[in-house]
Amino acid sequence: MTTGLYVGRFQPFHLGHLEAIRHLLGQVDELVIVVGSAQHSHTVENPFTAGERITMIRRALQEANISPEKYVIVPLPDWDIHKVWVAHLLSQTPAFQVAYTNEPLTGRLLKEAGIKVEHIPFYHRDKFTATEVRRRLLAGENWEELVPKSVAKYLRQIGGDERMREISQSDKLA
Amino acid sequence: MTTGLYVGRFQPFHLGHLEAIRHLLGQVDELVIVVGSAQHSHTVENPFTAGERITMIRRALQEANISPEKYVIVPLPDWDIHKVWVAHLLSQTPAFQVAYTNEPLTGRLLKEAGIKVEHIPFYHRDKFTATEVRRRLLAGENWEELVPKSVAKYLRQIGGDERMREISQSDKLA
Amino acid sequence: MTTGLYVGRFQPFHLGHLEAIRHLLGQVDELVIVVGSAQHSHTVENPFTAGERITMIRRALQEANISPEKYVIVPLPDWDIHKVWVAHLLSQTPAFQVAYTNEPLTGRLLKEAGIKVEHIPFYHRDKFTATEVRRRLLAGENWEELVPKSVAKYLRQIGGDERMREISQSDKLA
Amino acid sequence: MTTGLYVGRFQPFHLGHLEAIRHLLGQVDELVIVVGSAQHSHTVENPFTAGERITMIRRALQEANISPEKYVIVPLPDWDIHKVWVAHLLSQTPAFQVAYTNEPLTGRLLKEAGIKVEHIPFYHRDKFTATEVRRRLLAGENWEELVPKSVAKYLRQIGGDERMREISQSDKLA
Amino acid sequence: MTTGLYVGRFQPFHLGHLEAIRHLLGQVDELVIVVGSAQHSHTVENPFTAGERITMIRRALQEANISPEKYVIVPLPDWDIHKVWVAHLLSQTPAFQVAYTNEPLTGRLLKEAGIKVEHIPFYHRDKFTATEVRRRLLAGENWEELVPKSVAKYLRQIGGDERMREISQSDKLA
Amino acid sequence: MTTGLYVGRFQPFHLGHLEAIRHLLGQVDELVIVVGSAQHSHTVENPFTAGERITMIRRALQEANISPEKYVIVPLPDWDIHKVWVAHLLSQTPAFQVAYTNEPLTGRLLKEAGIKVEHIPFYHRDKFTATEVRRRLLAGENWEELVPKSVAKYLRQIGGDERMREISQSDKLA
Repeated sequence: MTTGLYVGRFQPFHLGHLEAIRHLLGQVDELVIVVGSAQHSHTVENPFTAGERITMIRRALQEANISPEKYVIVPLPDWDIHKVWVAHLLSQTPAFQVAYTNEPLTGRLLKEAGIKVEHIPFYHRDKFTATEVRRRLLAGENWEELVPKSVAKYLRQIGGDERMREISQSDKLA
Repeated sequence: MTTGLYVGRFQPFHLGHLEAIRHLLGQVDELVIVVGSAQHSHTVENPFTAGERITMIRRALQEANISPEKYVIVPLPDWDIHKVWVAHLLSQTPAFQVAYTNEPLTGRLLKEAGIKVEHIPFYHRDKFTATEVRRRLLAGENWEELVPKSVAKYLRQIGGDERMREISQSDKLA
Repeated sequence: MTTGLYVGRFQPFHLGHLEAIRHLLGQVDELVIVVGSAQHSHTVENPFTAGERITMIRRALQEANISPEKYVIVPLPDWDIHKVWVAHLLSQTPAFQVAYTNEPLTGRLLKEAGIKVEHIPFYHRDKFTATEVRRRLLAGENWEELVPKSVAKYLRQIGGDERMREISQSDKLA
Repeated sequence: MTTGLYVGRFQPFHLGHLEAIRHLLGQVDELVIVVGSAQHSHTVENPFTAGERITMIRRALQEANISPEKYVIVPLPDWDIHKVWVAHLLSQTPAFQVAYTNEPLTGRLLKEAGIKVEHIPFYHRDKFTATEVRRRLLAGENWEELVPKSVAKYLRQIGGDERMREISQSDKLA
Repeated sequence: MTTGLYVGRFQPFHLGHLEAIRHLLGQVDELVIVVGSAQHSHTVENPFTAGERITMIRRALQEANISPEKYVIVPLPDWDIHKVWVAHLLSQTPAFQVAYTNEPLTGRLLKEAGIKVEHIPFYHRDKFTATEVRRRLLAGENWEELVPKSVAKYLRQIGGDERMREISQSDKLA
Repeated sequence: MTTGLYVGRFQPFHLGHLEAIRHLLGQVDELVIVVGSAQHSHTVENPFTAGERITMIRRALQEANISPEKYVIVPLPDWDIHKVWVAHLLSQTPAFQVAYTNEPLTGRLLKEAGIKVEHIPFYHRDKFTATEVRRRLLAGENWEELVPKSVAKYLRQIGGDERMREISQSDKLA
């Protein structure tokens, strides 16, 4: 059985993430999904808590009929010290054989630690980015079409758009 | 649907933990299983990494035919500042309605934060404790009878008994 | 007796802060004045230490004949993790019934923690801001008219303008 | 005007602390009272939060008719790195000319930083220690006679004895 | 015997640093060379680890026939709290009588701690800056002429230019 | 050229450490000497700062006619998270091919990171231990015979025995 690692921030989880997971589960038997920057929330770049992001992923994958036997979700905080982040990741996750990332620094750090790294094919990258979802949430535009139905429902339930607007008016540093 | 919180260190996961989870899943629809002291490993009190403990829990619950739809596992580090630990826990976990713990301080901190707390009936507490499993691992006694078969297999695979012996000879503080 | 919470950075304490405190002491019996970002000093945004800011507040309120029985000052560091900042604030401050802030994120975090939040009427916001005082300190313009006399005297005594100029020439990140 | 520094943990504030403050206010014009180990609470050694300890000190000194113009209270966390603790203390406190402590390490660290250090005469040290108050709180013995009346009332109000008992049953490390 | 302190980030070590060290060893008998921001690596501003920077300095000074009896290298992490950074520096370094720096904030913090601070004459500052070396590494221009031969060889050996390019494509915050 | 790693706390540096370094320099061309627990000082277990320990090592090796070209000294703080300590060590040290340690946990962590680990032959381990030197410093017994002459002179100069006695009377946790 092969296990893959998939690292993201999921701020919020959108249809591009879902397509990536579908694709990766065609390559490996199971996925360790790392929710990165887990300590952050209530900032313009990181509006949602790790707990909220775990909830979004579970609901979206259930909606997509992806069995929870195929994945495990692990929240992971950032580290000031880049070389140490990989060691921490390895101590917090079940064993895996390959890591999937398109982020150049994440890829380099994993490779320097001797881990096999592969790219993820993008699904309509012009449209499905978390940055675009956050922009629409803030602007009051149609963000629902970019995320799974269950995630849209959850974000409405926790008042995600209102939170984005209040955060964006803050003069605190993100 | 009601969600319960179950906090433990699972160093290692044993049959008492399994019985507790079986019992709690009779009380609530799903469990958030928090792997506490997640930053620790390689000490006499905390020999296994969070990643290893997540692996033990997943294998044990699969062996016990408990569906992964019924639980989500969240690793959580300790905090020097007790009052802040609860706030961090709430930010890292999906929403829950009741917390289960027999640890008096954990219970008190959760109650002070307005969370409903209930006790867990012990299953042969004289026998099934992680302290006893660690003692037997170190002494070379029969520890396998205290843990699920899949956990015994995994601990042999990662050399859990050898690790316990090397750690115990260290003069580093735990 | 009602106690209010008033959070600021006070970099430095100016006449707008004094007016706010006067106004709030008409609403509540006593104030917990939190000196935020307490760990910072010697940066362009945060030139003064928490100890220096406590000194400014005490001298300004004494000059304004506000009795020290009406307030208590608590320095509080920032936290990387927003949700945890509120828990830390609650553990470091005496009990209060209402919090006063115009900062949207601070307000939201306090409200999410179940705390009653109210706004503070601004006193000539176009003129009395700490940003403007710092700009004038740096530019050598008339900053004294924006702060209480006792604060002006103290800032001259500790060489506040010289510090601002040395800090501003640094290429270190703030 | 001379300012003195007085460092304590005040777990809880007792009559010996009150006598020390009375004595020191005969030596200096005002006191900076540092509430040490400010990050800790809910442990056997440090049961009360910094906010609760600030409240005790304010109430006790009001009861003793000591004017709040004579003191300022500053909570200060511990530091892993002893030499750095003094630098942090100096950045968080108003200026002072002399420090009062009977703790040998605290005294040495302050002296190594060039600060004048003097001892505090003990007031019935056999009886008035925070350790003894905590022991009696736990044992259900007469602890009220060791603390100011206002502190006794406050500790009853926040359930200090119940908290001590719950904490003492915890197997978490203090 | 007089000892001087010389603080830099050395990202990477270049001929301007070498000239500064030559000059300072004409003023003092030995140098404590502090490798600042020691925790950082793999960012655009701080591409190299502390271990790599120590290696560059040792090789460059050996190439320049400067005896290792004349210097000791100490890596030192940044601190969020500026006033505390100096206390940490003093605890991690051998004793010295004078500090050399052209950085205004570093100079001010050292002076506030009672340390004698002097400036370093620049050697062709228009040309020999670490910023310019990093820019050329990234652009594929002639960076070798700005650093000692031994440093150029080492940077080629560890793939410094490739690392710069991968890091620069990252959207992670530096 | 082969480089070895030698990890110790050197609290203080004694003749056993010197013999170990002599022996290891017969095995490898140069040594990276890591001063562990670098953040600690002024405790019974860790009385001396990293800067003081670096000074002891340099003086002792100079006295022993060991050329500074043969070694480089790197202070390294402890980490709460054992698995992460090795990653931090690797980022702060020049490259090495083999690590020397008799500490079982340190050895295991290095081996788990893929590093070759070898033991160090002890030199009169019954006599030459840092614990025994500290005991004698505290008891006022003959500690000088256990350390190099230059270290004895340095410890007298900084008042090492007086510091040990003051620290030992503290009730602060080490």
